[in-house]
Amino acid sequence: MSVVSLLAELTDVGASRAGGYDRLAWTSADADCRTWFVAQASSRGLEVETDRNGNLWAWLNPSLPGTALVVGSHLDSVPRGGAFDGPLGVASAFAALDALGSVSDFVPGRPIAIVAFSDEEGARFGVACAGSRLLTGALQPDAFRALTDVDGITTAEAMSAAGQSPEHVGLDAERLARIGEFIELHVEQGHLASSAGVDGLTSDAPLGLATQIWPHGRWRVDLVGQQNHAGTTRLADRRDPMLDLARVILEVRIAAKSHGILATVGKIRVSPGAVNAIPGSVSAWIDARGSDETLVRRAMAEIGRDAALESWTPATPFDPAFVAELGTSLGGTLPLLPSGAGHDAGVLALAGIPTAMILVRNPSGISHAPEEYAEDADCERGVVALAAAIRSRAA
Amino acid sequence: MSVVSLLAELTDVGASRAGGYDRLAWTSADADCRTWFVAQASSRGLEVETDRNGNLWAWLNPSLPGTALVVGSHLDSVPRGGAFDGPLGVASAFAALDALGSVSDFVPGRPIAIVAFSDEEGARFGVACAGSRLLTGALQPDAFRALTDVDGITTAEAMSAAGQSPEHVGLDAERLARIGEFIELHVEQGHLASSAGVDGLTSDAPLGLATQIWPHGRWRVDLVGQQNHAGTTRLADRRDPMLDLARVILEVRIAAKSHGILATVGKIRVSPGAVNAIPGSVSAWIDARGSDETLVRRAMAEIGRDAALESWTPATPFDPAFVAELGTSLGGTLPLLPSGAGHDAGVLALAGIPTAMILVRNPSGISHAPEEYAEDADCERGVVALAAAIRSRAA
Repeated sequence: MSVVSLLAELTDVGASRAGGYDRLAWTSADADCRTWFVAQASSRGLEVETDRNGNLWAWLNPSLPGTALVVGSHLDSVPRGGAFDGPLGVASAFAALDALGSVSDFVPGRPIAIVAFSDEEGARFGVACAGSRLLTGALQPDAFRALTDVDGITTAEAMSAAGQSPEHVGLDAERLARIGEFIELHVEQGHLASSAGVDGLTSDAPLGLATQIWPHGRWRVDLVGQQNHAGTTRLADRRDPMLDLARVILEVRIAAKSHGILATVGKIRVSPGAVNAIPGSVSAWIDARGSDETLVRRAMAEIGRDAALESWTPATPFDPAFVAELGTSLGGTLPLLPSGAGHDAGVLALAGIPTAMILVRNPSGISHAPEEYAEDADCERGVVALAAAIRSRAA
Repeated sequence: MSVVSLLAELTDVGASRAGGYDRLAWTSADADCRTWFVAQASSRGLEVETDRNGNLWAWLNPSLPGTALVVGSHLDSVPRGGAFDGPLGVASAFAALDALGSVSDFVPGRPIAIVAFSDEEGARFGVACAGSRLLTGALQPDAFRALTDVDGITTAEAMSAAGQSPEHVGLDAERLARIGEFIELHVEQGHLASSAGVDGLTSDAPLGLATQIWPHGRWRVDLVGQQNHAGTTRLADRRDPMLDLARVILEVRIAAKSHGILATVGKIRVSPGAVNAIPGSVSAWIDARGSDETLVRRAMAEIGRDAALESWTPATPFDPAFVAELGTSLGGTLPLLPSGAGHDAGVLALAGIPTAMILVRNPSGISHAPEEYAEDADCERGVVALAAAIRSRAA
């Protein structure tokens, strides 16, 4: 079955009236995606499992000796997300097995699994890659179970409501030991410069390989003023933190530009947030990432405000030897790009598993939005490459 | 009873753990304030009424001929508001009647009423002076009943829960016709320049009279960009409305300064408001006011963005003859100041009722915040002036 046909089966699942897809973790749309996964796996005679962390697995020849080659991605989305971020990798895995099944001389020499990791986006509960982080032990069960969504629903309640027990989440060493290698195919999410200096995947290069996930951090800046009446307080008497906010937003962009990193102010909290009140305080969150940790830290030092570090993820290189071997097996011509976004592949790489990512060109350069896009022909090219990679690693 | 003792009885009502007072309309704290009003009125033998719009009235000699002299203010507060904005005017009215009651030669020649208008701040449902606007017909019953708070509770539901029927709100012509004059005593809310060019009430002038309520408007600026992934979108590919927001905030301040008005950005909405997403859109609300409508409009024209007018209130002058007579009766030395804030007095003035405001010095210059302040001695001076005004108008 073609990857385009496979994705088409998900067209209506979680479609937002405002455009894009709402498939947040452990919602009914997420459940519909999971039902689709189970149906696809079952129709191919694959053995389906849901692990204790809610990740879905479909096994081919699980009883063969050796560790498994795992391919896949995730099915959940951000609010109003695109159709490709996640599902493209899972659908491509099914399509790649179909392609290999029709090749008479492919005989798997090791177990192969297709995985759909749970709650990759972290859009509902705030922690990205929750399913893979629980699996590798990078996220503690109690910390995970205490997370809540905007309605105050805990992850434990959300999982229970979806029929998944939250009691046994956490490190799954036995399963982890079975994963020999992991390959995640994913839609390109921007036009970051490749190792050849080219911005993004081009008309000559519909596919690429990821070399690393950029180091990235999240900071919070708290700006304090004096709450007062907007209609009665002379300008000279004001201590208005909204003016400081304006300066911070502009400084963040200037620092990012001068150091060649990406930095974004995407979330703001204003207290009290009334039209007729000078705010008493404003908080701004800064997301900053770049090819080099030093550049990110230098840029942040230039903001000129006390910024509290809320989280930091160091650079996560993918295993160079594994990526090189994969590149050779795919013809040796794929451009190498970094990923600015975090992925389950990064979580598994940090756990010591040889991991690689195949990126599929996205002409829009837009992701986490309805405009996210990949051409049918490029999706099919991705499947051919993924099938070649599976054949190379698992024959 | 002294005004300081009267206010002290409200010290614990709606006290916020974060400082200041939460006495939003139709909450239990508001109900406690109302209970206090009824107890004060009853203990003085005044006749208590709640009108169909939820405003509280305490009548002295209601059967005397002629229209009533009404004094009072409101009891509700903004979130974390101060102790004086509203209650000072109501408590001073009771204290002034007490002072007059001990003067043997004061015999009222007309009805006198103390009023506590309902929901003056508009902090819960978004429309300020709801009680007085309903009374004068400036706010339509259906529009009022459809207002909701942040929890989606309608004004009608909130009033019902507080035991007040919302069915009969609206223009109360008969009651309006009984109001001959209205005097509202209020804490000063900033240090706006007096007619003598002095900034705010000074050590030589603990009391003042308001001449007008400034014209004021509320605008919304919608800034549209392209929602995208913060970790993968090159700076050059971004259309980030947060940068536009920063420019608008700074432009608003520059325009306010150059035209001598007050303008404030106090409320912002960011969509989707995620740390790792470049926003797709940002909306900012601008509150602008000044001594002159032309200056306000000129300043707004300089913002350089399409700003949608959400509400506009023209300048509301208080009846010059009435203010002059009141000033003379108080010794002829009180400075005249504008009010940047809206008040029930402005609503009644727009309805054609001779209206005046006595302002009490606020050394902090801060209002709508816990730091709002008036010295005990100044509060007592306000009572003396209010008693003199009542004697002058109602003997």
